[in-house]
Amino acid sequence: MYGVILAGGNGTRFWPLSREEYPKQVLTLFGDQSLIQHAIVRARAVVSPEKIFVVTHAQHAEQIRIQLPPRLHPTFLYEPLGRNTAAAIGYAAVAIRRQVGDDVMAVFSADHAIYDLDAFYAAMALGEKLAQTGYLVTLGATPTRPETAYGYIQVGAPIADTPTALTVNRFIEKPTLAVAEGYLQEGDTFWNTGIFLWKASTILEAIDRYLPPLSAGLREIEKDWGTPEGLENLPARYAQLPAISIDYAVLEKADRLAVIPTSMGWEDVGSWTALSTVLPQDDAGNVVVGNVVSLHSRGSIFYGGERLVAVVGLENVIVADTPDATLVCAKGDAQEVKQIVEILKTRGGDTHRTHRTVLRNWGRYTVLEENADYKIKKIVVNPHARLSLQMHAKRAEHWVVVTGTARVTVGESVYTISANQSTFVPMGVKHRLENPTDLPLEIIEVQSGAYLGEDDIVRYADDYGRVAPTTPPT
Amino acid sequence: MYGVILAGGNGTRFWPLSREEYPKQVLTLFGDQSLIQHAIVRARAVVSPEKIFVVTHAQHAEQIRIQLPPRLHPTFLYEPLGRNTAAAIGYAAVAIRRQVGDDVMAVFSADHAIYDLDAFYAAMALGEKLAQTGYLVTLGATPTRPETAYGYIQVGAPIADTPTALTVNRFIEKPTLAVAEGYLQEGDTFWNTGIFLWKASTILEAIDRYLPPLSAGLREIEKDWGTPEGLENLPARYAQLPAISIDYAVLEKADRLAVIPTSMGWEDVGSWTALSTVLPQDDAGNVVVGNVVSLHSRGSIFYGGERLVAVVGLENVIVADTPDATLVCAKGDAQEVKQIVEILKTRGGDTHRTHRTVLRNWGRYTVLEENADYKIKKIVVNPHARLSLQMHAKRAEHWVVVTGTARVTVGESVYTISANQSTFVPMGVKHRLENPTDLPLEIIEVQSGAYLGEDDIVRYADDYGRVAPTTPPT
Repeated sequence: MYGVILAGGNGTRFWPLSREEYPKQVLTLFGDQSLIQHAIVRARAVVSPEKIFVVTHAQHAEQIRIQLPPRLHPTFLYEPLGRNTAAAIGYAAVAIRRQVGDDVMAVFSADHAIYDLDAFYAAMALGEKLAQTGYLVTLGATPTRPETAYGYIQVGAPIADTPTALTVNRFIEKPTLAVAEGYLQEGDTFWNTGIFLWKASTILEAIDRYLPPLSAGLREIEKDWGTPEGLENLPARYAQLPAISIDYAVLEKADRLAVIPTSMGWEDVGSWTALSTVLPQDDAGNVVVGNVVSLHSRGSIFYGGERLVAVVGLENVIVADTPDATLVCAKGDAQEVKQIVEILKTRGGDTHRTHRTVLRNWGRYTVLEENADYKIKKIVVNPHARLSLQMHAKRAEHWVVVTGTARVTVGESVYTISANQSTFVPMGVKHRLENPTDLPLEIIEVQSGAYLGEDDIVRYADDYGRVAPTTPPT
Repeated sequence: MYGVILAGGNGTRFWPLSREEYPKQVLTLFGDQSLIQHAIVRARAVVSPEKIFVVTHAQHAEQIRIQLPPRLHPTFLYEPLGRNTAAAIGYAAVAIRRQVGDDVMAVFSADHAIYDLDAFYAAMALGEKLAQTGYLVTLGATPTRPETAYGYIQVGAPIADTPTALTVNRFIEKPTLAVAEGYLQEGDTFWNTGIFLWKASTILEAIDRYLPPLSAGLREIEKDWGTPEGLENLPARYAQLPAISIDYAVLEKADRLAVIPTSMGWEDVGSWTALSTVLPQDDAGNVVVGNVVSLHSRGSIFYGGERLVAVVGLENVIVADTPDATLVCAKGDAQEVKQIVEILKTRGGDTHRTHRTVLRNWGRYTVLEENADYKIKKIVVNPHARLSLQMHAKRAEHWVVVTGTARVTVGESVYTISANQSTFVPMGVKHRLENPTDLPLEIIEVQSGAYLGEDDIVRYADDYGRVAPTTPPT
């Protein structure tokens, strides 16, 4: 069986915690792992490692890799842009067809929480069997409250040879509270989890029948799969694929559907309000994370970090704080956060795109201060890691070591500096920063020059393959 | 006539904009001047400069001086601690008695907004005449809305020889909305502004009669006024003064009270909610200041700075943002902000006490990053200013110039460094930083050592009189 994890999020719904270059799937919102780490751990329990695909944007792959030890690195399928689930699933099915001809594929989302893993694995095992026989299988989660933010599936008769799987009566869009309360009592209606199992050939046939434009687009993509031309043509072709959900476009019309109901403690972590379902609440129904002082509030989500946030007398309000941006949003308006991100894009700043702290393969940097004349960064280099051998045409850099020991290359010189020592990298001179020790290295970098953009960099050698001048900046 | 400006605020009600060391009176909340600048400009229009006293805490005098050109520097009367208005006014009356025997004193608050200065000055002129004849005079502001946050004064008969002054019928505490609406229609009830005029002797006699414990305490203080013993005894004696308002303790009981009603556009800027009265509102009744993106909100106050704040769907909420702390508070709970500050005091951090940027006579510094091992500061030195000649026993400092030119003293050496150059100040070595130019000097300071507290400093010479080892830090 193959595993396909859909991780195409673009970081708008969890802004300011998520950013364009730091999307939701790499956020650690509950537990001590990120959403993608949780998803990969779950997938590896039922799929062998070399058969896990992660469908995501190319720019997000580095952040995902940084979070995983190399033995857990999945195969990435890069989407040039997001075109909803039908396109992503069809694209993954084509990849499987090209790789092995046909097999069952389990489709997961990168933004789910599942608390009862044994129940989940049992449902997956049953689903795999059904999928082998040509069913389009979806997992249904037993509702535990009248949730109005989820879709539902009403089931029909049991499928004869597997009494714990049932046919689908109908798919139901997000219901009203009264309707959702009815479902909770009737017992034949389940949360639509978006976890699917089917053979690649089964879903591609269904797409062929119910969504011919996608089928045609996928055939174009498959035609020169794996060639330089294919790679070059992918963005234009992918952009032409219809952007529609697999549920709406295919499943609601298809035959041979099966639902496996399970009480696996499933939640969709789709927006800020979902944190009320996956994190513990205090007596007044507040979720409180980070450096927050709270008085007299109810039903709210206060998600801080190191900065201090003080809240008084709020009801059903989300406060989300990061070093460079704060969101304060009525819970009922959580969907509008996307709109805020759209506004920020038009303003031309960086707060929709990156955090002040950027994680890299070799460590991380934090922009402490930035203006037209200079930029101050704190740079942390992991033990035995090094940045690329590089040169900047328009800026000079001062490095002051504050913790640890650095091996420094400046022009032809290579030397060592330790805490309380500094060095200077003139404009236009090749240089490299390396941590040759077992302990972290922290330096303060003061950049000055006429232009301080991250793209003023030429790389001559790099441990992470970023030597082309067009690669993302250090 | 003397002017007495009460500026004893301790920075709790406007937290996080105000801090213990940066109180409300130095905040620029409306217009382009701080509250204390506005108050001094108003006082100077009716009182000659050498006769203006500012009653405040000693630790706040530097911040007030920094905001005023030397020709506007008032005489400071330091309160060792705040003991409400009766004590502060009695203390100022004693100062006038010691200086000239007796004269009219006009009492202002540092947290008022007055829009019609001509009306204000006219009322002051009339008030001075009445005060000369032994009246206790207060200005009453014509109410423009049924405000429930202000006290009111109901007037009686006109005072015969000055038809625009009236006797007091009664003082009224903050009324309900219904009652306040009645006052608005009746026309004989005015906002109690807390702006007073009386002779020092008149108010001291009234204190003697209605508040004998204050009178006794003030006599103790007056006994050795101006002597080293008096200065030494002041904190203990001041702490013993009754902490009560002049209205409640004296005026409500006194005879010969006069009210001068005036439509001078007066507002008390007492807490965050007051900003709705002194700043313009958008169509939805929101006050929006700073880097704020707002969607679908009503009746709220969004007071940001350079950091980005995004707000969605809020109603009657205050959001106040600073670099190191954010407040989100229901408007109806604005008084609870004091409680937040009390909680912060018990937590032992700095967010109740100082801002990340601290203003000094010579310029300012901003703490960019701080931990157990190092501290990073940006230091801006004003043209032709210099820090003290100083030494730190437990830390070394790296200075990197990012803008301008510095004259640096390190040990016996004196030299100049410019943008893109750096220097090192070893632990235990005397040093001085000076800006000898007409343009600002900006440096990045990296401190490292076993102890990084601001109190690790010995000053050998200083342009601002801070050479004793117990003076406030640089």
